[in-house]
Amino acid sequence: MSRTKGGFTLPGEAGYELLTLRMAEKWGADVIRDSDGTVLSDEITQAGYGIYSTICIIRDHNAWAKAHPGRLQQTFLSAGPVTAEGEELAIPVMEQFFAQQFAVNDTPDAMRYWQVWDRTEGTIVKTVETCTHTDAEASKTDQSAGASSPCWSYDPEKQTVIIKHAKPFHRYSVSFLAWQMWEQISMYNHVTNDWGDREHLMPVDPVYPDVQEYLLGWLEDWCKTHPATTVVRFTSLFYNFTWMWGSDARNRNLFTDWGSYDFSVSPLMLDNFAKEYGYALTAEDFINQGKFQVTHMPPTARKRDYMKFVAAFVADLGKRMVDLVHRYGKKAYVFYDDSWIGVEPYGPDFARIGFDGMIKCVFSGYEVRLCSGVNTPTHEIRLHPYLFPVGLGGAPTFMEGGDPTRDAREYWMRVRRALLRVPMQRIGLGGYLHLTEDFPDFQDYIETISDEFRELEALHESGKPESTGIRVGVLHSWGSLRPWTLSGHFHETYMHELIHVIESLAGLPVETGFLSFADVAEGALEHYDVIINAGRAGDAWSGGDVWKDPELTVRISEWVHRGGTFIGIGQPSAAEGTDTYYRLANILGVDEDTGARVCHGKWTFETEDPEGLVPEGCCLPVRGGRFLTDGKAQVLLSHDGCPDLTRYCFGEGRSFYLSGYSYSPENTRLLLNLITAGAGKKAEELPYIAKNPNVDCAYFPESRTLIAVNLREDAQETEITLPGGEHLSVSVPAGGQCILHEI
Amino acid sequence: MSRTKGGFTLPGEAGYELLTLRMAEKWGADVIRDSDGTVLSDEITQAGYGIYSTICIIRDHNAWAKAHPGRLQQTFLSAGPVTAEGEELAIPVMEQFFAQQFAVNDTPDAMRYWQVWDRTEGTIVKTVETCTHTDAEASKTDQSAGASSPCWSYDPEKQTVIIKHAKPFHRYSVSFLAWQMWEQISMYNHVTNDWGDREHLMPVDPVYPDVQEYLLGWLEDWCKTHPATTVVRFTSLFYNFTWMWGSDARNRNLFTDWGSYDFSVSPLMLDNFAKEYGYALTAEDFINQGKFQVTHMPPTARKRDYMKFVAAFVADLGKRMVDLVHRYGKKAYVFYDDSWIGVEPYGPDFARIGFDGMIKCVFSGYEVRLCSGVNTPTHEIRLHPYLFPVGLGGAPTFMEGGDPTRDAREYWMRVRRALLRVPMQRIGLGGYLHLTEDFPDFQDYIETISDEFRELEALHESGKPESTGIRVGVLHSWGSLRPWTLSGHFHETYMHELIHVIESLAGLPVETGFLSFADVAEGALEHYDVIINAGRAGDAWSGGDVWKDPELTVRISEWVHRGGTFIGIGQPSAAEGTDTYYRLANILGVDEDTGARVCHGKWTFETEDPEGLVPEGCCLPVRGGRFLTDGKAQVLLSHDGCPDLTRYCFGEGRSFYLSGYSYSPENTRLLLNLITAGAGKKAEELPYIAKNPNVDCAYFPESRTLIAVNLREDAQETEITLPGGEHLSVSVPAGGQCILHEI
Repeated sequence: MSRTKGGFTLPGEAGYELLTLRMAEKWGADVIRDSDGTVLSDEITQAGYGIYSTICIIRDHNAWAKAHPGRLQQTFLSAGPVTAEGEELAIPVMEQFFAQQFAVNDTPDAMRYWQVWDRTEGTIVKTVETCTHTDAEASKTDQSAGASSPCWSYDPEKQTVIIKHAKPFHRYSVSFLAWQMWEQISMYNHVTNDWGDREHLMPVDPVYPDVQEYLLGWLEDWCKTHPATTVVRFTSLFYNFTWMWGSDARNRNLFTDWGSYDFSVSPLMLDNFAKEYGYALTAEDFINQGKFQVTHMPPTARKRDYMKFVAAFVADLGKRMVDLVHRYGKKAYVFYDDSWIGVEPYGPDFARIGFDGMIKCVFSGYEVRLCSGVNTPTHEIRLHPYLFPVGLGGAPTFMEGGDPTRDAREYWMRVRRALLRVPMQRIGLGGYLHLTEDFPDFQDYIETISDEFRELEALHESGKPESTGIRVGVLHSWGSLRPWTLSGHFHETYMHELIHVIESLAGLPVETGFLSFADVAEGALEHYDVIINAGRAGDAWSGGDVWKDPELTVRISEWVHRGGTFIGIGQPSAAEGTDTYYRLANILGVDEDTGARVCHGKWTFETEDPEGLVPEGCCLPVRGGRFLTDGKAQVLLSHDGCPDLTRYCFGEGRSFYLSGYSYSPENTRLLLNLITAGAGKKAEELPYIAKNPNVDCAYFPESRTLIAVNLREDAQETEITLPGGEHLSVSVPAGGQCILHEI
Repeated sequence: MSRTKGGFTLPGEAGYELLTLRMAEKWGADVIRDSDGTVLSDEITQAGYGIYSTICIIRDHNAWAKAHPGRLQQTFLSAGPVTAEGEELAIPVMEQFFAQQFAVNDTPDAMRYWQVWDRTEGTIVKTVETCTHTDAEASKTDQSAGASSPCWSYDPEKQTVIIKHAKPFHRYSVSFLAWQMWEQISMYNHVTNDWGDREHLMPVDPVYPDVQEYLLGWLEDWCKTHPATTVVRFTSLFYNFTWMWGSDARNRNLFTDWGSYDFSVSPLMLDNFAKEYGYALTAEDFINQGKFQVTHMPPTARKRDYMKFVAAFVADLGKRMVDLVHRYGKKAYVFYDDSWIGVEPYGPDFARIGFDGMIKCVFSGYEVRLCSGVNTPTHEIRLHPYLFPVGLGGAPTFMEGGDPTRDAREYWMRVRRALLRVPMQRIGLGGYLHLTEDFPDFQDYIETISDEFRELEALHESGKPESTGIRVGVLHSWGSLRPWTLSGHFHETYMHELIHVIESLAGLPVETGFLSFADVAEGALEHYDVIINAGRAGDAWSGGDVWKDPELTVRISEWVHRGGTFIGIGQPSAAEGTDTYYRLANILGVDEDTGARVCHGKWTFETEDPEGLVPEGCCLPVRGGRFLTDGKAQVLLSHDGCPDLTRYCFGEGRSFYLSGYSYSPENTRLLLNLITAGAGKKAEELPYIAKNPNVDCAYFPESRTLIAVNLREDAQETEITLPGGEHLSVSVPAGGQCILHEI
C-alpha cells in the first residue's frame, strides 16, 4: 500500500471493478480514467474518485460521416516516380498506398490541387486541357513546333493518370488528394491489438462548418450524458500527426512525422489559407519531391505560414469546445502526443484555448520538461509501459516474454532526474489494467514509483531547487516554438544527437532555453552563457542554409569573443559554399573535409585532458574527416589521428567541438563540465553536484532538503560538494532515491 | 644469374663499379642509369651497356638563376583566413609557409594578381587606392555615406597585408604570388636523405624566353659533353606537381596534388593565357577559397582551359628539346611521376613532343596500364621499393627494420597481373645500388622478377592474349584524358574507392576504357557493355553537379534499358536537388537518405545470392543510410537491414549497386561476376578464367600458351575452364607464376 496518496491517474476497466479499486488504493490514485478500448462502469465512476474521460473528438462518428460524404480528413499523397519507357505512361495513383487508410479524392474541387511532375527535369506537366490550348497557340505561330509537350489526363475508373507525349526515361510522379478512411491511431491500436472486425473509425474534418456544428452538438450531448466525468481529456484536438501506410506489407510504414501538417489539408483549408495570406499553397508545398516537410529539416517560410494558419483555426474552434466543457462544470485537459497539429503547446495560440491541464506520455526526462513548461495550471505525465500486450516496435510487454517491471524502471529512472528540476502535478498510466494481474511485481513497482513521485513533488511545493544559474541555449530551426523535443519520443529520434543532448540537459542544474536562428538576429544571445548547436549538415537541428547568412556567424563569433561558450556537436553550422564547411570553424578550430581537402595536409596533435574534463566512462560516437583548422585547438579526445573532442579559445570565450554525442550519465557529466568551463570549474566543484556522475542531486533551499537519485541499477556512493566547500557522503540505493533533511 | 637477358634498367653508382656490373649481370640488365643523388663513372658508362641519364631540366641552374632574378617558378598561396577582432587587421602573408620553399613576390607585376577576400561574405576587398577613389565618389553624392568600406594595403617591410575598416568578426584571407625557392622533389629527397648543407636546387620557369634560350643552350652543351648517354630520361618536363609545405613542423605538408596546375603560374603565363583565351584568370581560379583545384574534385571550365593552354606551351618547348636530343643521336624518354603538369600522357599535345619512351614508377597494377597505353614506342616500369634507406611514409626499407624483399614481392604481385593483359618493354629500378649489398635476398628476388618479366613479355611478343571482349567503361570527370589513375599512387588515393576498382580492372580480361560525362553526351555509351561510376558525392569520380543535367541520366537509363549493365559504387550519380540523391536511383533501385527521409519507412528485404555471384571471402566496405527505392532490387549483401550489394533489372539491362569497394582477389572476382552478368554467366564459366580467384590467367592463342599467376603468398590450386567446357587443373607456386604450353 502506498505511503502517500494523490496525484495519480489510474486506468480503470469495466469488468475488473475489484482490481480497479484495489490498485487505486495500492497506488494512491485520486483519479480514474478510461482508455482507447476500455470503458468505466458505474461502480467505478461512483466510487468517489475524480473521473477522466478520453475523447478523440474527430473520430467515432462513422454514421454521421457516411451520411455526409466529403467531410473526412484528407492529405496529399505522391504516386511514383515512375520512369517512362516510351511516350505514354500510366500511373495508377493508389498502387503504393494502404487501401484501408486512403481513398482517392478526384472530385473537381480536389483535382484543382493535383499536380503531375517530371522529376527528372523538375517541371510540372500540363493537363490535357492546358496542353491542347497551348499547342494550338504554338501551332499558330510556329508550324514546325515539333514534338508535342507532355500532358496528362485522369481515368477515374482505373484511378490512373495517363501521361501522353512523355519524355522517354524521364521520371514522373503524381501529387493527388486522398481521403483518410481510417484514423491512424485507431488503425494502429486496431492492428496492434488484433481488434478483428471492429469498425474502422474515420476522422471527420472540422474545417467544414457543418462538421463544427455537428461536433459541438455532439460534445454538448456528451457532457450532458457523462455527469460523473470531472475532466474531459482531449486526445488532443483535430488533426493527427502524419502516418501514411503503404500497400505492401514489406513497406507498411511509408512516412510518419509528429510535427508534419500533411493530415490537415483539404481544398477548403487551402482556399481559406490563400484568402488570408494572399498566396496559394500547392501540392508541392507538402509533397516536396516526395520527401514531405519533415520536422527534422529546416521549415520553409510557406510551411511556417501554414502552421500559423492551422494553429489559429484549431485554437478558435478548440476554445469553443473547451468553453463548452467548462459550462458543464468539467475541466478540459489535452493529451499531447497523437494529434497535436495546430496544438503546438508553446505556440502563440495555445493559451487562449483555455485548457486546464496538459498530459504528456513520457519515456524520457526531456518529455517531463516539455510537459512541465506548458502554460496550464496542471501537468501530468503518463508513464510507460502502456498496459498493452506489446510495446515499442511490437516487443512483448504484458505477455509471455515481456518484463514490464524492467521497462517501467528503465523509463522511470530516465524520467525522475528531470523531476528533480521542475515540478509536476500528476502521474498516471493508460491501457488495460487487467493485464497487470499476471505481473504482481509490476503492481508493486508502480507503488514505489508513486511514492517516490509524491516525495519529490513535496519538495517542489516548498520552493524551487538550487541551480548553477548558467543559462544554456539550444540553437536550432524551431527554437522556442518546439523546445524540449525534436519530433516524438527518444526511440523515434535517437539517430539525432541533439535528442541525446536534450535528454542530458533535462536533469542538469542549468537554466535551459531554446532559440531559433531568427532569435539570434534579434539579440537573443545576450540571454545565454552557453549556446549548443548539434545536428547533421542540412537538418533542422544543425540549421542548413541559414548558416549562409554572415550576420549569424558574426553575431555568434562576437558573442563568444566577449566570453560566451559555444558547444558544437556533429556538423554544427555546416553549409557548403565557402572555405570552411562549418561556418563557425573559425571559433571551433575544427572543420570537416567534404572531399575537397583530401590532398591537404592535416595538423598533427597531442591528445590531452590536463584539467580532467572528460569523466571516466565517457564515450562519444566518433566520425572521420574532422581536422584542426589552425592547429591551436586543444584535443581532449581523438581516434586514428582525428579529433573527437576539442577546446578552442577565442577572445574572452571558448568553444568545444564534439564529433558526436550520446546520452549516458558519464557523457552528461562531460556536457556539464563543458557548460561550466566558462566559470573555470569542473562541475563537481560546484555546490550540490555529486562527484559520482551516476547520481543526480537537487537542493531545495526553502526546505533545506537535498535529494539524490540513482541513475544506475546498482547502489552508488558519492560525495556531494556543499557551498562552504565541505563534502557530504551519500549512499543511494540501487535505482532508488535518498532524501537528506536539514542540509 | 638470370636465365634471360634484356629489358632491364639498373641504377649504377660511381664508387661501386664492381657491384654495378655484377648486378647488371645477375639481373640481366641491358641499360644502366643514374639517379637523383648518384652519378655514373666512366668505368660504368664504358662497360657496353645502354646509358640512361636523368635530367630534371628546370633545376640545378642556381648560378644562372641567381644572376637572373625574377626567373624562378611561382605559385599562388593563400594566407589566412584570419578573423577580424576589430576594424584593423594585419595578415603576415608568409606566416603559414615554409620559408625555405617560398618567398613573397611583391613586384608590381605580381601585385596585380593579389586578392584579399572577405571569406565570411564571399566578397573581394578593395585596395586602398580603389577604396579612396570610390569613397570620394560616394561622398560627392551622399554626405551620410556612413562607415567606410574595408580596404587593404601591403607593407613590404613586414610582408604584411593591412586591412582597414575591416568588418569585425569577418574572416579575411590574402591570395598572393610567391616564388619557389626550392624545387620540391629536390627538397623532399634532401630532407628524406639528410643531405645537410647540399645546395637547395631552385626551379627556373621556361615561360620566360631567356630561360628557354638558356635551357636549350644548356641541353645542347649537355648532349655534347655526354656522348655515352643513349637515352636522356627527362624527369619529366617543366612544371612539378603541387607540393606546398608549411612553416610548422606539426603541419609540414599543407597541400599536395599530382594533377593540380598551381606551380605553373606566373604573371607572364596568366597574361599569355588572357591574350589567347580572351579572358583573364584570377588568383581565385587557383586558390578556390583555400581548397585549391583538387584533382579529386570536378574541374571548372576555366581550369580545363588553363590546362589546355599549359599543355600546348609545354609541348611546344618540349618538342624543341626532344628534337635537340634526337639531333645528338640520343633517345628521349619521359619519366611520368613528378613534374607532369602539361605533360598529360593521354592529352592531345603529348604525341607531338616526340618522346621515344615513357617510364612510370609503379606500386600497383593500374600503373602498368597507365604506362602501357601511352603512345610511345617504348614503355618501361620502374619497380619499387626505390633503393633509399626509407620508403613510403618514412618507413624503413634498406636499413635496420626494413624488409625490401617483402616490399618488392608485394608490389610485384600487384604489378604482374596487369602485365598479363598488356605488353611492357622494360622494367627497372632506381636509387642507391650499394644499399642492396646488405640484402642479398633482395638481389636474388629481383633476379626472379626479371626472369618472370621476360618470360611474360615473350608471350606478348607472340600476339595478344584472349579477352572476354566485354567493353567496360569507367565514367568520371576526367574521362580519357586521365585513364588508369586518379592522382598518384595507390597509397595516396586508397580513400577513393575508384582506385580499388581500377586496380581490380587492371588485371581482368576485359576491354577497359575511360569516358567523361561530356563523352556520354556525344554518344560514347554505344562503345561499352558495362559502365562503372564509383565515387563520393560531389567528387570528380562520382561527378558532382554534372548529374543535374537530365540528358545524362536519360542517356544512361536508355542505354541500360537496351541491355547495358550499370555498376554504381559508393555515391554514384549523387547530386542534391531532386527527389532522389542518386540521380540514377531509378535504375539502381537504391538511394541514400541525406536526412530528409529519416521519418520515411524503408522496404524490408531478404538477402540472397541464388546464383552465387558473391565469391567466398568477398568483403565490401559497408555504409549506412542506403535503402531500396521500390523494393524490387535483389539484395545480395546487407548489414543491419541496410543493403550493401544489390541488383536491379531495368528493361533489357540491369544495374548493380555496391555501397563500397576495396581491392582484393575475391572482390575482384565479384566485380568480374557483375561485369559478366550481362552475358548471364559467372566469370569462372568463361574460358581461361580460374575458378580460384587467387589466380589470374591469360591465354595467348598465337603461341597456344596459358600463364597463371598467383596473387597470394601460398601455393594455389585451381581449375581453369577451357573453351570446350573441359577444365584444366593447375598448381601455381606461392607468389609465383606457371606457364603451360600447347593448350
